[in-house]
Amino acid sequence: MPALLVVSAHAGDFVWRAAGAIALATARGERAKVVCLSYGERGESARAWREGLALEEIKAVRRREAENAAAVLGAEIEFFDAGDYPLPESPELVDRLVRVYREVVPDVVLTHPPADPYNGDHPAASRMALQARVLAQAIGYDAPGEPLGAPPVFFFEPHQPEQCDFKPNVLLDITSVFDTKRRAMECLPAQQHMWNYYTDLATRRGVQLRRNAGPNLGLPQNTMAEAYVRLFPQTTEVLA
Amino acid sequence: MPALLVVSAHAGDFVWRAAGAIALATARGERAKVVCLSYGERGESARAWREGLALEEIKAVRRREAENAAAVLGAEIEFFDAGDYPLPESPELVDRLVRVYREVVPDVVLTHPPADPYNGDHPAASRMALQARVLAQAIGYDAPGEPLGAPPVFFFEPHQPEQCDFKPNVLLDITSVFDTKRRAMECLPAQQHMWNYYTDLATRRGVQLRRNAGPNLGLPQNTMAEAYVRLFPQTTEVLA
Amino acid sequence: MPALLVVSAHAGDFVWRAAGAIALATARGERAKVVCLSYGERGESARAWREGLALEEIKAVRRREAENAAAVLGAEIEFFDAGDYPLPESPELVDRLVRVYREVVPDVVLTHPPADPYNGDHPAASRMALQARVLAQAIGYDAPGEPLGAPPVFFFEPHQPEQCDFKPNVLLDITSVFDTKRRAMECLPAQQHMWNYYTDLATRRGVQLRRNAGPNLGLPQNTMAEAYVRLFPQTTEVLA
Amino acid sequence: MPALLVVSAHAGDFVWRAAGAIALATARGERAKVVCLSYGERGESARAWREGLALEEIKAVRRREAENAAAVLGAEIEFFDAGDYPLPESPELVDRLVRVYREVVPDVVLTHPPADPYNGDHPAASRMALQARVLAQAIGYDAPGEPLGAPPVFFFEPHQPEQCDFKPNVLLDITSVFDTKRRAMECLPAQQHMWNYYTDLATRRGVQLRRNAGPNLGLPQNTMAEAYVRLFPQTTEVLA
Amino acid sequence: MPALLVVSAHAGDFVWRAAGAIALATARGERAKVVCLSYGERGESARAWREGLALEEIKAVRRREAENAAAVLGAEIEFFDAGDYPLPESPELVDRLVRVYREVVPDVVLTHPPADPYNGDHPAASRMALQARVLAQAIGYDAPGEPLGAPPVFFFEPHQPEQCDFKPNVLLDITSVFDTKRRAMECLPAQQHMWNYYTDLATRRGVQLRRNAGPNLGLPQNTMAEAYVRLFPQTTEVLA
Amino acid sequence: MPALLVVSAHAGDFVWRAAGAIALATARGERAKVVCLSYGERGESARAWREGLALEEIKAVRRREAENAAAVLGAEIEFFDAGDYPLPESPELVDRLVRVYREVVPDVVLTHPPADPYNGDHPAASRMALQARVLAQAIGYDAPGEPLGAPPVFFFEPHQPEQCDFKPNVLLDITSVFDTKRRAMECLPAQQHMWNYYTDLATRRGVQLRRNAGPNLGLPQNTMAEAYVRLFPQTTEVLA
Repeated sequence: MPALLVVSAHAGDFVWRAAGAIALATARGERAKVVCLSYGERGESARAWREGLALEEIKAVRRREAENAAAVLGAEIEFFDAGDYPLPESPELVDRLVRVYREVVPDVVLTHPPADPYNGDHPAASRMALQARVLAQAIGYDAPGEPLGAPPVFFFEPHQPEQCDFKPNVLLDITSVFDTKRRAMECLPAQQHMWNYYTDLATRRGVQLRRNAGPNLGLPQNTMAEAYVRLFPQTTEVLA
Repeated sequence: MPALLVVSAHAGDFVWRAAGAIALATARGERAKVVCLSYGERGESARAWREGLALEEIKAVRRREAENAAAVLGAEIEFFDAGDYPLPESPELVDRLVRVYREVVPDVVLTHPPADPYNGDHPAASRMALQARVLAQAIGYDAPGEPLGAPPVFFFEPHQPEQCDFKPNVLLDITSVFDTKRRAMECLPAQQHMWNYYTDLATRRGVQLRRNAGPNLGLPQNTMAEAYVRLFPQTTEVLA
Repeated sequence: MPALLVVSAHAGDFVWRAAGAIALATARGERAKVVCLSYGERGESARAWREGLALEEIKAVRRREAENAAAVLGAEIEFFDAGDYPLPESPELVDRLVRVYREVVPDVVLTHPPADPYNGDHPAASRMALQARVLAQAIGYDAPGEPLGAPPVFFFEPHQPEQCDFKPNVLLDITSVFDTKRRAMECLPAQQHMWNYYTDLATRRGVQLRRNAGPNLGLPQNTMAEAYVRLFPQTTEVLA
Repeated sequence: MPALLVVSAHAGDFVWRAAGAIALATARGERAKVVCLSYGERGESARAWREGLALEEIKAVRRREAENAAAVLGAEIEFFDAGDYPLPESPELVDRLVRVYREVVPDVVLTHPPADPYNGDHPAASRMALQARVLAQAIGYDAPGEPLGAPPVFFFEPHQPEQCDFKPNVLLDITSVFDTKRRAMECLPAQQHMWNYYTDLATRRGVQLRRNAGPNLGLPQNTMAEAYVRLFPQTTEVLA
Repeated sequence: MPALLVVSAHAGDFVWRAAGAIALATARGERAKVVCLSYGERGESARAWREGLALEEIKAVRRREAENAAAVLGAEIEFFDAGDYPLPESPELVDRLVRVYREVVPDVVLTHPPADPYNGDHPAASRMALQARVLAQAIGYDAPGEPLGAPPVFFFEPHQPEQCDFKPNVLLDITSVFDTKRRAMECLPAQQHMWNYYTDLATRRGVQLRRNAGPNLGLPQNTMAEAYVRLFPQTTEVLA
Repeated sequence: MPALLVVSAHAGDFVWRAAGAIALATARGERAKVVCLSYGERGESARAWREGLALEEIKAVRRREAENAAAVLGAEIEFFDAGDYPLPESPELVDRLVRVYREVVPDVVLTHPPADPYNGDHPAASRMALQARVLAQAIGYDAPGEPLGAPPVFFFEPHQPEQCDFKPNVLLDITSVFDTKRRAMECLPAQQHMWNYYTDLATRRGVQLRRNAGPNLGLPQNTMAEAYVRLFPQTTEVLA
């Protein structure tokens, strides 16, 4: 069974940025697994802090929300609880990721792009996800399972794409699963303003998808899309 | 029937750089059309000049060779005879290309990359191929046929890729048609040293393809490939 | 009186992309002048062509719409009627622009960014606007008026910013004039789907502006913005 | 009261590269605070080593010089004494910087650019200054004070700007305070050859400032300037 | 006898930017030839215009100055008188340059870098110099002489290097001929402020040269240098 | 006696990528020293793992092979045995490298380029080699020996050059020592498929060298070359 692996710095990232790709995969009957390196408890939970919640309460809330969103998407989810702001990079975290790679054997990997001047945790997650993928390929790396192949990596869209040098080279049509993405987003009630923000973004990326696909393909006006950057060259037998 | 359009500055370019993609298309039963903007009579025919041939003789030789190669590949070929070294850019040439676009209605376009410090004709061909594609999309452009859709564009590999800022993002598996490509190359006897050069290049791009595809896919040791740069974002319903 | 000069390839470009900046200038009592190099009659008037209008009719419609939008914005407008798709670059067109520069003596110049793989007219307009600005600075250039100073140039936002290497370095707060921009957009009824598209874009750029300005500045939730790229270094006495 | 924060890898960096900006701020009655992460005792004190001074003596000399320069500029100064060559990056150092951010609440931040192949301490300082700024913005980060806003960041000029990919986008007119900068530089007698070097540089950047500002502004021949790179988009209500 | 070819947009460019390289070549007994595509009569002669000289007078003055400077440097000089502001690109001009290449058979070529947002003539000269070099290599190009080899090309330094994406990769030690360069500059009395400007620049590039060469080489304090960008890869038998 | 220092992440890297440069140096009677930071025991020894060797056995085999290759090249070799996949970056490793720099006093340094998405150890080795070079220059750095000068650094070619942003700016003619390189490669029997791969690569880089050197230089058809990227500007008294 094909498998999708998503490495997310904080508990909510995979919802806003990649829920469409996840829902497409599970709709095709594939396995999808999300790893949240942290809960985003310090840097992405402003409202909870202002409401006076304690650290452990915030983590519990964020965990529950992310579990609900993953359930809507039909995805497994695992939390590393490594802490955020800053998300500390360490050999131990990378090793945990290697073990996930070896267990999931993903055909596709999604993670953050490697540059983000607004948020240091996102590049840290990206670096660790990429390093672990390379280590998992080495037969000599001491972890259970077989050496990994070379699954393609796609970076999902950051909040300010141009400032992160994010130049999309793949536009993914998520029209058929957008309702599922919307329901997953609605599992995160503390960030209600994001529901419309990311709906508008999907609309805009959909307009671009139709423009790049061409008018002759007959895509509907309400095409919704997510933007990605493919890291390694595509290998194919057909140019299309 | 799907159609492939190749815009080539000189008579030989499409053979060395894109014969694999052409052969794959025709092997799938698709139409393939090559436009040679010039014969490469001044800049790419050193041996013929040293042998003392006259200009028109050289053009005739180059035309015959290219026709033979196209026949091996199962492709149509048309010569604009616009002159080379320099290949002059003009609205008339672009208009002729627009009419080809409107007639062929390509699903995929191949041409030179836009930078090449070693050869000014290649970027000139690239600019005209790209401009004509955009003009052909406009309903108001005065040429026969329907407005074009938005066919993807792939740049084929220049002779010194790094110096041309050519960073491949697509590796095309041409193993199944490499014999055809080799036979097409052998239609150009004046450049015999190129036969092995481009065979070695296909081998090397094949090694890279296998590396990027991963060992688990079971690609054969002798995988042969061509490298391309996709200009516009890929539109898709599946990340892979 | 300070003056703003906008060089636009087609009749509608200045509305979607720069109406906020124009309205801010005129609201401050400054002069604003728009030059439309073409009407966008072939490439940006698909609906009119489908409705069967003749070329001259389309040009008249586009002219009237652009005049109405300029009037709403309080801007002067001039049409060069140079043709579009392609917009031909020529010394004569550049010379006409030099004369506009010498007459308007702009303090700020707005035009298209220099790269756009989807539309060759936009870079052509950009190149001519920039070349004319430099020529107008030369005391020896034979045109009426005094040599120009060195007005800053800002590129306005293209339709697919990342594909045009458009990395905004200025976010302009247009909240106070957004109603005017909306009314100007509504002067272009053939492109009604753009009204909401550019409203959504202004909202999104507004979110980014608030993020870059910081939460402490107390900007309202509905901040609206336009994105620009400044070409030359900013000269200032205060870092801010 | 507006506040300026300068994060400097070594004791002298802020003088050569940013004394003009500091003097302008204090001349406007604003607070300016300099943090020197190290004294530059190993890597930037060649003459003292050749004279046979001991490590602690060198640090004391460098400290005194930097204090004198800061006094001339009207700036506060704090030394972290973290060591140089290499300046070690650590969570503890970043945390100390977060606390400075929370205490100073800067409106503007100056630091080194992120690339310098000649000196690894400069990028290390830059990374820590930027990371601390982001952490200080998080309400959940455990440090005294309120969450920081989003103060703009400007990189000051490295010794070999082109090799550091330093492309100035702000030229700051420091003519009115150049005498102060000169006196601050003269507080560092061991690097006397730098006094003229940085005076010449200010002259050259001043020539460029006048060129970018335009001849019509009437700037004096002896305009002096410092060059900066703005990291985040400028937010503004006026294009100028 | 080795030969150096310099292609200069205006009459003065070769003096400010490349006189050191020229003087070094002629001091070694090599041939040096300068082609000035224009006199810089409109764009680089502000003082003469303000003094009321007529166009032909200005051209005569500029010609005489450039001839004097070339004589000081021991270089031949030829004027194409193609006009400036704008310098018009044409097949005829390129063809004239091809004939110069075929006659001079240069071992090294110097010209402007291909980007300069402050001056369109410089990139135009660069494009024509590069195109002519490629055409001159083609045996089939109809011009007297033998096909050219592949002489290396070096771009000389523009006025605002960072804004022109000019990242020097060669620093040329011109200490031994700097007096000659100074005398050549003094042949251009209308631009007296440039004498010191370019002396200061040579000092600064000399400081950088010493820094890149290393302190152990014993270069003198007053090392003077010019900065260049090498376009094509260096070919060599020794890494150094 | 001039000295060459090569910093290699794994035991085999210096052979495939830089054996030509090393053999040229020793053929000129210069000293060459190779530092292998690891044996490549986990990431570059797939065959040995599949054959069931133990970790220490693999390291011993790799060490012996590398020693043999170094002997063929006439180079000294030292192993840091720091571990691979991942090669851990640490101040201690960097300090060991500083001491090597101070002892060898290299005139030229070769190492990996700083980007490689396929292999994290290569950039790690590059960063440490570059950092140690800078530290070794500081008189205050506490290690035996004199402060280092500023030896030029050349990056050798990675496996997928375009994906590593490797744009060669030096092509080194290794024809005269290619037989030695081939013999050195043959000391690594486990990677026999690489012998031909790197022979083909040397042929291809040789073709490019001849193209860049020009046909007039009379280089032989079988010119063999290695490609390098020079990090710092070349300092010279002759443009060539």
